[in-house]
Formats: sequence, structure tokens, C-alpha cells
Amino acid sequence: MRYPPAAMATITVLGAGMMGSALCVPLVDRGHDVRLVGTHLDTAIIDSLKERHVHPTLRLELPAAIRPYAAEELPAAMEGAELVVFGVSSAGIGWATETIAPFARPEVPIVMITKGLWLHEGRLAVLPDAVQRGLPEAVRRAVVPAAIAGPCIAGELARRVPTCVVVTGRDAATLARLTEVLRGPYYHVFPCADVVGAEVCAALKNAYAMGVAFGAGLHEKAGGAPGSVAMHNWESAVFAQAIREMMRIVALLGGDPLTVTGLPGVGDLDVTMNGGRTGRFGRWLGLGLGVAASIERMEGATLECLEILAVMRKGLAVYEARGELQPGELPLLRQMMAVALDGAPLEMPFERFFAG
Amino acid sequence: MRYPPAAMATITVLGAGMMGSALCVPLVDRGHDVRLVGTHLDTAIIDSLKERHVHPTLRLELPAAIRPYAAEELPAAMEGAELVVFGVSSAGIGWATETIAPFARPEVPIVMITKGLWLHEGRLAVLPDAVQRGLPEAVRRAVVPAAIAGPCIAGELARRVPTCVVVTGRDAATLARLTEVLRGPYYHVFPCADVVGAEVCAALKNAYAMGVAFGAGLHEKAGGAPGSVAMHNWESAVFAQAIREMMRIVALLGGDPLTVTGLPGVGDLDVTMNGGRTGRFGRWLGLGLGVAASIERMEGATLECLEILAVMRKGLAVYEARGELQPGELPLLRQMMAVALDGAPLEMPFERFFAG
Ligand SMILES: NC(=O)c1ccc[n+]([C@@H]2O[C@H](COP(=O)([O-])OP(=O)(O)OC[C@H]3O[C@@H](n4cnc5c(N)ncnc54)[C@H](O)[C@@H]3O)[C@@H](O)[C@H]2O)c1
Ligand SMILES: NC(=O)c1ccc[n+]([C@@H]2O[C@H](COP(=O)([O-])OP(=O)(O)OC[C@H]3O[C@@H](n4cnc5c(N)ncnc54)[C@H](O)[C@@H]3O)[C@@H](O)[C@H]2O)c1
Repeated sequence: MRYPPAAMATITVLGAGMMGSALCVPLVDRGHDVRLVGTHLDTAIIDSLKERHVHPTLRLELPAAIRPYAAEELPAAMEGAELVVFGVSSAGIGWATETIAPFARPEVPIVMITKGLWLHEGRLAVLPDAVQRGLPEAVRRAVVPAAIAGPCIAGELARRVPTCVVVTGRDAATLARLTEVLRGPYYHVFPCADVVGAEVCAALKNAYAMGVAFGAGLHEKAGGAPGSVAMHNWESAVFAQAIREMMRIVALLGGDPLTVTGLPGVGDLDVTMNGGRTGRFGRWLGLGLGVAASIERMEGATLECLEILAVMRKGLAVYEARGELQPGELPLLRQMMAVALDGAPLEMPFERFFAG
Repeated sequence: MRYPPAAMATITVLGAGMMGSALCVPLVDRGHDVRLVGTHLDTAIIDSLKERHVHPTLRLELPAAIRPYAAEELPAAMEGAELVVFGVSSAGIGWATETIAPFARPEVPIVMITKGLWLHEGRLAVLPDAVQRGLPEAVRRAVVPAAIAGPCIAGELARRVPTCVVVTGRDAATLARLTEVLRGPYYHVFPCADVVGAEVCAALKNAYAMGVAFGAGLHEKAGGAPGSVAMHNWESAVFAQAIREMMRIVALLGGDPLTVTGLPGVGDLDVTMNGGRTGRFGRWLGLGLGVAASIERMEGATLECLEILAVMRKGLAVYEARGELQPGELPLLRQMMAVALDGAPLEMPFERFFAG
């Protein structure tokens, strides 16, 4: 057996959304003591879990071994915690950092599943670095936050579908320990030393997935039905250009472009095409519904693709002003900004793709 | 207008299957004189095109400007030809090379859409090199065959869906000329100097697409319905590992691994997941139908994925014997060989992926 019931760990997950909750499944299956803490927005989820172990947005009964806690019960949930997971989305990251600050200790690593990029002092920064800056001075240097990236649809992980991810961080010893604690028979965790590469992919894939999904909308708009003859040539050209642009952006931010060719880039962009909200939103834009109507149809679901496009627009301007990026680079990203932020007509500048 | 009605060219396409015929559409739209020559297996197609311009396997009326020729009419079809396209599948490549030999001339480039790899004197060789060796001595050095690769479903190109491909070859001047002749408003052609990289991708993507498609079969076998929660995590992990392995194989054969990150690798593997027969075949294997029954269900359709797996098995043994490849490398490819050639049970060795 490759998975000895290794030293049981006490793990506290902050944020009981779909992904935070799904991650608890391989962790309890592995024998860890897992506490799932809802934010102030997760009251209904925690109540439902306490009552009958059912997660309302995952629409699934979770293992009874997962221990649900309300936000107010955080101190109890943190008692003896050896590992903290941030399960919030990017809007909750400030809250999570502040909330955890009093409990942060050097020997307790923080792992995040959140995706996003932050513009900080003229540079685009990845989330683990941003969170570290938000921690109390006393622990800032000792706690090196890590992150999980790669193709993982929460609803599938919660149903124990075999899943491969990377765990990434700047501290090699922490990474080795995290890999060992997190992995399980159907949750395959690979260490990745390139935080910038992995996190840039995680943040950007939502935006690029929207761009690929434009194709499905365009096809429908032209009266086409789903099938093997559709706009797949169009979509796959955009997909390939997306990978090329992510490699460029990773290099620009000081990461390793090869990271894009593995789970965090190729794998996660691929899975996102199948996974739901971003694809739906892109399809509506492709159909020509317009930005406002498409947002409205999402019924309040977080649109991380728009958040990241807005950050990237500001970021690119700064890098361009410094001469680190040319205006002709990243034509797909710029076109997605024009379409999704400015309502420009959906045309793909294919001739400028592939450094053409 | 980016597409001047450039010097009209006379182009002869050999093989009236789906892809050879589809390619004629952007070429006649561009104003070229396009002759489509059926092989001895394409009699019904040519008859139908001559009678009513309908292509029976594409199930589509093609532009009347495409001029269909039966195999016996080849001399007429070659009169004044300035460019020859090989539209046959790998089984027909020997036939096409012999047939074209009497007409081969240094100033007439040969472009192929065929995919495959050949084991030759202990090395895996790409198709353009294999074809060149089969040409008459007098022209062998002067005709440098080129090839088209990238995400292109024939039925979509024939319906003028925007499509991006690369044209690749060893002669830069020929490449520049071909790019100019082939490209059109919806057919975006990019030159690619890395023949080995592009052609290895073209050949291998069918095999790897089969591996990704196992996931859909496994999901169905487990009683799952298609949907956003399925086995996408599984499939995308295999997809990412496929890209990594293609990069390794390209490097082994002396190409540039970065070629895999663009249209020929990422793009073509992605489109093949949507495109039909390979995916269907992989799904049946995933469902557990077994190799023989799955082949039978394909009703005689060419299974290039099995051809390439058989060639690769022989090839890998040779490279391993020379110590250029380690037995632990390419775990996905080896597992696909075991499943599709030997009928081994479908288990994915995820822990050995990503150099784990
Ligand atoms: N769903 C997936 O398949 C998946 C996979 C990998 C990574 N992720 C990432 O995980 C993160 C969460 O995604 P999810 O699908 O679980 O979303 P979700 O909407 O189900 O959950 C969001 C979580 O963030 C919290 N949150 C949101 N806004 C907040 C705020 N302003 N203050 C405090 N907390 C707030 C919510 O309470 C909830 O716990 C995202 O960054 C997402 O990109 C999701
Ligand atoms: N269909 C696609 O979307 C597509 C896309 C890109 C590349 N390709 C490649 O193009 C090639 C042709 O594919 P297709 O889809 O057009 O297949 P097809 O079955 O429609 O056509 C096959 C062609 O090869 C000829 N052929 C087959 N066996 C032969 C033999 N023994 N001797 C002489 N000629 C023979 C047939 O007569 C026909 O012209 C393949 O290598 C394929 O991988 C196909």
C-alpha cells in the first residue's frame, strides 16, 4: 500500500464553499482530523452540514467525519491545528488573512486554493506572497504560505474522482511535508517549486477559459448545434494561444514557463472548459448577450475571470511603461479585455496569434 | 484587405478523403485552380463530386470550382501543377509517393496532411523525411516535402470555420512560399521550422487522445451521465501528462519541445478530443468493451492511434536499448500500449506521472 495511515494531522479549512469543502474529503479519507469552518457567508452550509452532513452547493452528502464549525467557533476549530487551508475565493482573502493572523504560528503552514493576482508596488504578485505580507510581523518570515493548483473540479474531488494537483510554495521542506500530508489514493499531489508559474496559471486560466468558450457561443449564434462539427478548430486555436500567452506572462513575472505545460496550465485550462460557470459566461458573451446581461445571468456567482482581467489590464500597463512588455504581445488577452470589460465586438485577431 | 488575390496557383490534391477534400475549400476560395484526385479507393467520392459536387463522407456540397479527377486521370490533373498535396492517410503514403514519383519536379513542392511516424534504420522518422527518401534520385535533394499540422477537423474547415494551422518543412524559402499560397481569410497558416516537433505531435496526438477519452468510458461504466461533474479531473490530468510526454518524445527525436505548446501539440490534442473516431474508440475501451470489440465497432474506420502505438512500441525499444530513454519514462504512453495493444486492464499510473 502506497498510503500508510501516516501520522494523522489536525487540519483546519477556512471557508466552506465548494472547493474548501471538497478538499476535506480526501483529507478525512486519509485519516486526518478535519475541521471545516464556514465564513459569515457560509451559515446555511454549516447548518446543513451539522444537521445532516449535506453540502447544499455541492449537492452531496459529505463524510460524517468532517467536523463543521461556524465562524464564531474558529478558536475551537484552531485548537491543535497543524495545517490551515484557505478555502475562500479571492474576495475573501483579506478577511481570511486577518482572521487567521492571531493564530498564525511558524510551525503551522497555510495552504490556499484561492486563485488571483495582486498588483503591488508596480509588480503583479501571486497570492501566497500577498498573504505573507498580510501576516503579523512576528510570524511573517517563518510562515511561508503554500498553494494548490491544477485541474480540480470541486464536485468531482468530493465524489472521489482521481485527481492530480500540484502543491507549490517557496520553502522546500514545507512542500515535502505538505505533499505527504495532502496526498491520498485518489488525490495525487505533486510538489512544484515554481510558485509564480503555478499561481499565474491558476489565476489566468479562468480568463482564458472564457476566451475559449466564446467559440461555443459564436457557434450557437450562427445556428449551430453541439456536435463533433462545430467551432472546435476555432476553440483549439484559442486554447493553444492561451497556453503560449500564459508562458509569456509567467516569464514576465519571473516564473518558469515550463510550469504552464503541466497540471497548473494545460491541465487546469482543459478542466475549466468542462467545469461550469466561466464557460457559461464566455458562451453568453459569444452569443452576443453583452457584458451586463451576461453578468446578470450568472445570478451573483463570482466571476473571477472579470476580476483577473481587470487586474491584468492595470498590470500590463505598468510592465509596458517599463518596457518589459511590447504592445503587440498577448493579443488574445487584450482582445478578451476589450470584449469582456469594454463590450467590444467579438472578433479574434488570429493573424496576430502565434507571434504571427 | 490582408489577402490580395495573390498569384493564382495550380494545386493538385492527391486523395479525396475528408481532409484532402476539405483543404480544397480555402484553396478555391482563395482563387487557386484546385484539382482533387481520388485514389482507387475514392471512386464513389469522385463520382459524387462530378455529378453533384456533394462529398459523401463530409456530407456536404463543396464549391463547384473544385475540379474532381479519377485516379486514372492523374496525368491531366498534374498538368501545370505548381503544388502537390498528399491527402491520403498513412496507409496510402507509399502509394502516393510511388504515384507522384514520375511527376516530381524540384520546383513543385509536396505538402502532406498525413500523420504518422516510421521506424527507419533505428530511428523514428517523420513523414516528410520518409517521403523524400521514396522519391526518384534525380529530384530527391531538390524536392523538400512539407507538412501541415495543427487543430483542424476536416468537416469544420470545409464549412469555413476559422482554423489555425502550421506548415512545416526543412526549407525556409519553400515554407515562406507555402504559407503565402495556403493561407486565406479563415485559414490562418503559420510557418514552423521545427518539422520533427510538429510531425511528432501530429502523429502522437491520436494515441494520446485515445488515452484522454478512456475517462469518458470509465465515467459511463461507473453509471455516470455526461455533465460538468464527471471524470474531467481524470481526463485533464491525462491531457497534461500527454503534453509532457510529447515534449519528451520530441526532444528524444531531435525536435524542439516548445513546438508541443502551440498549435501542433496542445491545439491538435485539444481538437481531437472533440473530433470523433479516436475519442469514440478510447471511450469504448474505457467502457471495458475490449480491444477486439472496440475495433469491430469502428466499422473499418482507420485507427491511426493503434498504428502509431505499434510503431512507438518498436521505436521505444530501440531508443531504450541505446540508453537514450529510461524504462520509467513515458508511463502514460506505455500504459496506453498495454491497454490498447495487449488488452491490459485500464488503470492509470498517476503516481508515476509528472516525473513523480
Ligand atoms: N470550484 C472549483 O472546482 C475550484 C477548483 C479549484 C480552485 N477553486 C478556487 O477555490 C476558490 C473558492 O472557489 P469555490 O468554487 O469553492 O467558491 P464558492 O463560491 O463555493 O466558495 C467561496 C468561499 O469564499 C468565501 N467568501 C467569498 N467572498 C467572501 C468575502 N467577501 N469574505 C469572506 N469570505 C468570502 C465564501 O464564504 C466561501 O467559503 C476560488 O478562488 C476558486 O477559483 C475552485
Ligand atoms: N479528418 C480530419 O479532421 C483530419 C485532420 C487533419 C489531418 N488528418 C489526417 O489526414 C489524413 C487523411 O484523413 P481523412 O480524415 O481525410 O481520412 P479519410 O479516410 O477520409 O481519407 C483517407 C484517404 O487516404 C486514402 N487511402 C487510404 N488507404 C489507402 C491505401 N492503402 N492506398 C491509397 N490510398 C489510401 C483514401 O483513398 C482517402 O483518399 C490522415 O492521416 C489524418 O490523420 C485528418
